[in-house]
Amino acid sequence: MKIVKTFTAVRSEVAGASAALVPTMGFLHEGHVSLLELAGGLGGPVVMSLFVNPLQFDRPVDLERYPRDLDRDAGIAAAAGVDLLFAPTVEEMYPSPPRTRVRVDSVSEGMEGEHRPGHFEGVATVVAKLFAGIQPEAAVFGRKDAQQLAVVRRLTADLSFPVEIIGAPTVRAPDGLAVSSRNVFIAEDDRAAALGLSSGLFAAAEAVAAGERNGARLESLVRDRLGDVRVEYVSLADAFEAEPVETLEREAFLAVAARVGDVRLIDNIVVWPDGSSDTGVRLERPSILRRM
Amino acid sequence: MKIVKTFTAVRSEVAGASAALVPTMGFLHEGHVSLLELAGGLGGPVVMSLFVNPLQFDRPVDLERYPRDLDRDAGIAAAAGVDLLFAPTVEEMYPSPPRTRVRVDSVSEGMEGEHRPGHFEGVATVVAKLFAGIQPEAAVFGRKDAQQLAVVRRLTADLSFPVEIIGAPTVRAPDGLAVSSRNVFIAEDDRAAALGLSSGLFAAAEAVAAGERNGARLESLVRDRLGDVRVEYVSLADAFEAEPVETLEREAFLAVAARVGDVRLIDNIVVWPDGSSDTGVRLERPSILRRM
Repeated sequence: MKIVKTFTAVRSEVAGASAALVPTMGFLHEGHVSLLELAGGLGGPVVMSLFVNPLQFDRPVDLERYPRDLDRDAGIAAAAGVDLLFAPTVEEMYPSPPRTRVRVDSVSEGMEGEHRPGHFEGVATVVAKLFAGIQPEAAVFGRKDAQQLAVVRRLTADLSFPVEIIGAPTVRAPDGLAVSSRNVFIAEDDRAAALGLSSGLFAAAEAVAAGERNGARLESLVRDRLGDVRVEYVSLADAFEAEPVETLEREAFLAVAARVGDVRLIDNIVVWPDGSSDTGVRLERPSILRRM
Repeated sequence: MKIVKTFTAVRSEVAGASAALVPTMGFLHEGHVSLLELAGGLGGPVVMSLFVNPLQFDRPVDLERYPRDLDRDAGIAAAAGVDLLFAPTVEEMYPSPPRTRVRVDSVSEGMEGEHRPGHFEGVATVVAKLFAGIQPEAAVFGRKDAQQLAVVRRLTADLSFPVEIIGAPTVRAPDGLAVSSRNVFIAEDDRAAALGLSSGLFAAAEAVAAGERNGARLESLVRDRLGDVRVEYVSLADAFEAEPVETLEREAFLAVAARVGDVRLIDNIVVWPDGSSDTGVRLERPSILRRM
């Protein structure tokens, strides 16, 4: 695996090849590894970008304390089959104060957009920049960030980037908790409460399989399982427009966001009107992040 | 010359070649021809896009009455050496209502940005889309739209598009008037008033050559030559940031906008602190547009 720091170097390495891009902010976990493995299966070279993007942090303190460990991440990336690791510095990404912003109206509103002002504009801007500067043929994003996936899909279509966007299933710990770099901050005593998110979603998936199509009732099923957490939203949303759905009539995601202690967690499942769902995949052992 | 209607067709025609893109809204005149010839001199295939972009019109009536004549434009483009004419329909460009917008803060403010709300967001969005979908190696824009050129340069750098942006000198009628598709709307009796813009700018260029570096005094020189027109602004602006300049210390443009009768005209010259300037190039005969 080669590590490069500039867009020019990335393009000269993968020019003409059908590269698959996996954008990350580092601090890799099994969720990222699954994205990288999926990208590797596409046949072309796998480019992983590692950049903690200042534009997408709504709170400066979060940017400040975001964990960074290039050596650790490079080791995981190499083991997961990454061919090229693009790890620019902030100075390389933004040599002058960036004046350009990309926003995706409507799809970015509500849910995460409401609770993290400016977040999706930062995401859309950096994703457009990665697509423009790397020119990949495909890019893989996790379904765990379901609204982000909708934003990226819309951005890609609206701006005519010739990039295939692939959503990858959420990876879960053996107990069901969606793997996230934030999980290390969950106190031991709060783990049970944190599991309310996934168990609520699993209950809803069973209800969908049993015929439930009503958005409000599915949302209630999730809320009923949430214990000692501060709920920010529970919402059934259209998979493409990320707008609230009253009745399940095409692909949608049922999403929940809540604070468990100090830690903000999100989770979702994808559901279809034929009763099927994607609740993610389970690890057989605890996440490597739990051992840190 | 081949005419295509989709991004996919453009990419399959010029894949791997070092294409030069000239974005236009059609109704071609000698200004466009000079851009096309400059693009032809770069050595790769020349792609001209022809799309009347709804997003960049601040007034619906202007979009409505914008002249469209594909056959005429195709003839001029072919004669000017265009290899590929990309002429999408609105439905092909925006199959669903576009939710994505690209904006360039600061550079888009003031001057045209002030008098044409939303205009530069429309320009930035469609230029980003053309760059994303066509992946040209170079793109040629007229210096007549000096602030637009600054917006495009900034957008390209900020989003890391690997596209070289080339500014081409303004083309002028033998009497000095900057060639524009709007010139056909100037009443015969208003031509003398319209010439106030260019003659004011030429006087300022002479002053720069003679040592004048003060922005306010250069602006006054232009204003003094403007006769029976409604001035919108006269401004010395930084060539890259498009911000007002008090003293000429690096590349700048001196821009004027005014209404002559019903017709809104803009013009500018580029000036440098060494006393040199680019006042454009003159046609030896009247513009073909005058004969319409």
